[in-house]
Amino acid sequence: MERIERHASFGGWQDVYQHQSDILKCAMNFSIYLPPHAKDEKLPVIYWLSGLTCNEQNFITKAGAQKYASENKVIIVAPDTSPRGDNIADDAAYDLGQGAGFYLNATQAPWSEHYQMYDYIVHELRALIDENFPSKRVQSIMGHSAGGHGALVIGLSNPDIYQSISAFSPIVAPSQVPWGQKAFKAYLGDDQLLWRRYDAVELIKSGAARKPILVDQGSADSFLEEQLKPELLSDACCEMNYPVTLNMREGYDHSYYFIASFIEAHIQFHSAELNR
Amino acid sequence: MERIERHASFGGWQDVYQHQSDILKCAMNFSIYLPPHAKDEKLPVIYWLSGLTCNEQNFITKAGAQKYASENKVIIVAPDTSPRGDNIADDAAYDLGQGAGFYLNATQAPWSEHYQMYDYIVHELRALIDENFPSKRVQSIMGHSAGGHGALVIGLSNPDIYQSISAFSPIVAPSQVPWGQKAFKAYLGDDQLLWRRYDAVELIKSGAARKPILVDQGSADSFLEEQLKPELLSDACCEMNYPVTLNMREGYDHSYYFIASFIEAHIQFHSAELNR
Repeated sequence: MERIERHASFGGWQDVYQHQSDILKCAMNFSIYLPPHAKDEKLPVIYWLSGLTCNEQNFITKAGAQKYASENKVIIVAPDTSPRGDNIADDAAYDLGQGAGFYLNATQAPWSEHYQMYDYIVHELRALIDENFPSKRVQSIMGHSAGGHGALVIGLSNPDIYQSISAFSPIVAPSQVPWGQKAFKAYLGDDQLLWRRYDAVELIKSGAARKPILVDQGSADSFLEEQLKPELLSDACCEMNYPVTLNMREGYDHSYYFIASFIEAHIQFHSAELNR
Repeated sequence: MERIERHASFGGWQDVYQHQSDILKCAMNFSIYLPPHAKDEKLPVIYWLSGLTCNEQNFITKAGAQKYASENKVIIVAPDTSPRGDNIADDAAYDLGQGAGFYLNATQAPWSEHYQMYDYIVHELRALIDENFPSKRVQSIMGHSAGGHGALVIGLSNPDIYQSISAFSPIVAPSQVPWGQKAFKAYLGDDQLLWRRYDAVELIKSGAARKPILVDQGSADSFLEEQLKPELLSDACCEMNYPVTLNMREGYDHSYYFIASFIEAHIQFHSAELNR
């Protein structure tokens, strides 16, 4: 593991590391914000999963989260969104292949050799963080868009690992929308029963254990009606009597301007659960 | 003038406009953050000048200023750093030509036809903002690196227009450092007497009117010793008994992570002067 960037930020450090992933079989970058208190004590960790086309840089340059991580004494880790490299399967479209791993374990050729982002996030990266940084080994997960889908699915599937889940503009029901259907068909094949494992609405409908969930969605998001469909999440939660906080934010779009406007509330939400 | 971007942000709007500049003789973009209060009242304006290679996007995507502009009820305008276009003089280097206008009025060919950024900022853009947005017609100026140079020079040269001046990692004495010497020689010619008008240290030494100045400089800035030399500013201020606040920030570099960490203090500083 090699540190490839270090910037002082709000009294702590915004670092970027590169390591060789055994699960993804390629070099991967991740960013980690270490608050000033990380010098002296072990801290809880929040994982941030970015959306389509992003890498480990988008969140740390645009979301303005470091201030609140510093104030709330939490580490934030933001991985890349897929395996990367010239020898790794890819697609010319922005919503499949590199930059679009969808946080699942692919079963179909040519994707299955490297596209194992679910295991990478839940197992390999988490172990790496816990072993090499002042991690209290208690964590939460959040994300945006396809990364909001990832945060919901990973959090709901691992209630013993993640204390709380939050998402901005998540793809809540990938099995029912074009982005998810295209990706799931490529990565997982045609059997839609196998898609359910990676569909937050299906996980809630099938009785997922209850964890605190916070979702923010902009009303002016251009992907709202075709790809995001937050009403499918609220309907499922209502049906299962699963508590969820879903905030519709008037006038906000799908951009990091939206994320920056509400990231403080998400970090405070997770911090409260992580320090409970 | 055409609005080419609009994003909800901290209750207000982060907009980007394009207009045809008479002074620069080309189409120019500028960004403007309008706090929620701009709907109902006229507000003071802070101008942000970015550094080498930047355009109107860097500050609005990376500095995290919108939160504090919203809280302090100030408009922030961030222009591009030079004239732009295929038919406009340029240079292959990052520190001359497009992206590197140095906020001066060029006198030398081929630059003088379009490179009139000083007049653009002080006159044309300010008039455009005052006429088209809820501007209280009271303003301050701040910037980063070459834009810190621009803010100091423009602020010191126009004490009746700008209430306060601040800078992150500014080029305080361009006549004495490689970035400035290269640019001034190209844009202004060999007569170094003519450079003094655009050199903050020279302006202070020649008795510029006193306005509040705040400067933040990171101690781990890789340009500190060769290009920035803040000691030349503090020496000149000391010599002239000119009050200045210069904060050396231990461990911080030249990046927007540094700016984001201290932008709140700069906006509060300007807001206090603008509402005096």
